[in-house]
Amino acid sequence: MLLAIPKEEILERQEKFYTYLQSKQVDCAVLFSVTDIFYLTGFHFYPTERPIAFFIDDKQGTHLFLPALEHEHAESFAYVDYVHSYPEYPGLQHPMEYLKNVLQRLRFAGKKVGYDAIGYGSPMGYKGPILKDLLQAEYISISGVIQEMRAVKSFNEIELIKESCRWGNLAHRLLQKYSKQGLSEIEITSKATTEATMAMIETLGPAYKPHGRTAYALFRGQIGEMSAFPHAVTQNLVLKKGDTLVTGAAGEVWGYHSELERTMFVQEASKEQEKYFNIMYEAQEVAFQAIKPGAACSDVEHAVQTYFKDAGVSHLVQHHTGHAIGLLGHEAPFFDLGDETIMEPGMVFTVEPGIYVRGLGGFRHSDTVLVTEKGMEMLTYYPRDLASLICH
Amino acid sequence: MLLAIPKEEILERQEKFYTYLQSKQVDCAVLFSVTDIFYLTGFHFYPTERPIAFFIDDKQGTHLFLPALEHEHAESFAYVDYVHSYPEYPGLQHPMEYLKNVLQRLRFAGKKVGYDAIGYGSPMGYKGPILKDLLQAEYISISGVIQEMRAVKSFNEIELIKESCRWGNLAHRLLQKYSKQGLSEIEITSKATTEATMAMIETLGPAYKPHGRTAYALFRGQIGEMSAFPHAVTQNLVLKKGDTLVTGAAGEVWGYHSELERTMFVQEASKEQEKYFNIMYEAQEVAFQAIKPGAACSDVEHAVQTYFKDAGVSHLVQHHTGHAIGLLGHEAPFFDLGDETIMEPGMVFTVEPGIYVRGLGGFRHSDTVLVTEKGMEMLTYYPRDLASLICH
Repeated sequence: MLLAIPKEEILERQEKFYTYLQSKQVDCAVLFSVTDIFYLTGFHFYPTERPIAFFIDDKQGTHLFLPALEHEHAESFAYVDYVHSYPEYPGLQHPMEYLKNVLQRLRFAGKKVGYDAIGYGSPMGYKGPILKDLLQAEYISISGVIQEMRAVKSFNEIELIKESCRWGNLAHRLLQKYSKQGLSEIEITSKATTEATMAMIETLGPAYKPHGRTAYALFRGQIGEMSAFPHAVTQNLVLKKGDTLVTGAAGEVWGYHSELERTMFVQEASKEQEKYFNIMYEAQEVAFQAIKPGAACSDVEHAVQTYFKDAGVSHLVQHHTGHAIGLLGHEAPFFDLGDETIMEPGMVFTVEPGIYVRGLGGFRHSDTVLVTEKGMEMLTYYPRDLASLICH
Repeated sequence: MLLAIPKEEILERQEKFYTYLQSKQVDCAVLFSVTDIFYLTGFHFYPTERPIAFFIDDKQGTHLFLPALEHEHAESFAYVDYVHSYPEYPGLQHPMEYLKNVLQRLRFAGKKVGYDAIGYGSPMGYKGPILKDLLQAEYISISGVIQEMRAVKSFNEIELIKESCRWGNLAHRLLQKYSKQGLSEIEITSKATTEATMAMIETLGPAYKPHGRTAYALFRGQIGEMSAFPHAVTQNLVLKKGDTLVTGAAGEVWGYHSELERTMFVQEASKEQEKYFNIMYEAQEVAFQAIKPGAACSDVEHAVQTYFKDAGVSHLVQHHTGHAIGLLGHEAPFFDLGDETIMEPGMVFTVEPGIYVRGLGGFRHSDTVLVTEKGMEMLTYYPRDLASLICH
């Protein structure tokens, strides 16, 4: 049972990144993106106002730069050659001054330096200088390069996403079981989340290391009329008979996400609810058919929008069909009219065309799918049909 | 019982912001910070790759710019004069092109435009042009201005933080009750979190609107030897007799946070554990004494570091004494040697000097305190003494 990306694969990622830099005649690179740093080092940390950076020097040495409080933590858990730290933020000397000194010592000055962002960014009270003001060098933006590497998943990454789907399935099963008239959304989601989490950790044992959430199930406030808002979030509602519910469930496994969402109904669905449910169900089928390697992401959206137009519900659509998923819950590329990225085997997407009827509810399933050599494979496996989704 | 900031107070914030802009001869402003947008509009949303912006025009009109899927949601819940939206990201036309059109219509071109960031930012696969490349204007950075407004809390904000402390206290009480040898950290935190959440929503009733988490308690992996890492996060440990535990608990109330952390011991504390516990306890007392209006934030840190030096444990310190807290878990200013901000009544801080002993554990309490006219008031109220923190 795989519960982590092995060290060798992390080192392969670093190798691939360095090879990319060489192919662009870039000598070395500095990255600030939290997710990309985790991808390249296996080091999971809690990002705050304290700057963290990853860099690779011109001899392919890999480095982490972080606050003192993460120094020993990184030495024990990060797959890098060197760990550098500074005392604290803001500190008597700004952390970026320490960064400057380290980069100078490593001879980044005057080199061709790839970078993903102009500096460190955090909403938690951080301010500081940008890279270009610290060090004279030829800066070359490589923003998006690691995200592109992340878009095609390895065998191991797909295994972790499948593991995530498994625990999302359990959490969702419990969510449906507890979705009863008169109960509050928070009570239902708390109960389903806790029970699924307990089953997950008992099953996986101590080798399972939480990175973010364990198993969980939620409604995001999408209950009854409020389900017509795709991200209603701030509700605290009690379920009523006939309510439309839009759900979500997953387990996070070593930082990898999946997405399982279902439209359900409390006890019964009206003819009108059934009508929109069926349109949404078919839209998802249309999307599944359009997913194959070599086609553009936009092709999937075109197919779905054509179907919605023919069904006369284009005015009820509020978002595109889906997004890539992996270390983040939303990643590029997107099933969107404006995304011409060509699908490749190993890409993992959500498929979630939705329609939203003010006063009645929202209608959206989301499944996580893998692009394969021949087409696609469903990774989530919860029932999608109406009869299975009436909560009794 | 106050469970939300009233509309009038949100409008006062907008008024204050506009007055600030006028005082700087800035005509209008564009903000991208998610937290600042919530602060100024009361609109809580789930930020993704889809850009969101707030702007105020030269006639003091307030505007939200967001994706179609948030349009009706914002019209129902945001305290702004106008809501503008674009179809989708990336879309056939980039969202920032729509933004440009709106800003042109509102005559931002050629004006003095305040801005908080060069453009929208999101790790979720977003890329896009910066503001300056969209629209010709005189751009003036007002980064940090709303954060400064947020640093001094109003009566209502303090009430919400106190409400947060109340539910953190319950969650922590349950965490301590369930912290028993042989149980897993995830089991203990799940149980405490679910029970405290249920008590919270039953007590507060439907007027309570979740923004983020409800009540919760956690260890962040700080158990036994691993507690020597301040943010160990990725563990999945089982409690043993004699383990040092470092905890955390809070409830989020309308987006407001508090912080309650305790160092506890499973069944018994050794002489060595007791020694470090007592040093940490005294360091927190030293900090409490140093907190008063008119003094600098750095004074608090100086006092604590002097105490730690006298106690001979400076080498065990890995971070500063604390940070402001409010809509984010960490905010500026900081109790740090490099932060000369003068404390004012209404500021809310965490007080959490810590020492970390490799092989033994971490020692840190965190309390949330309010700067008052005369000194400070503790907002968290969980026992701090050793005898109360042995888990039986």
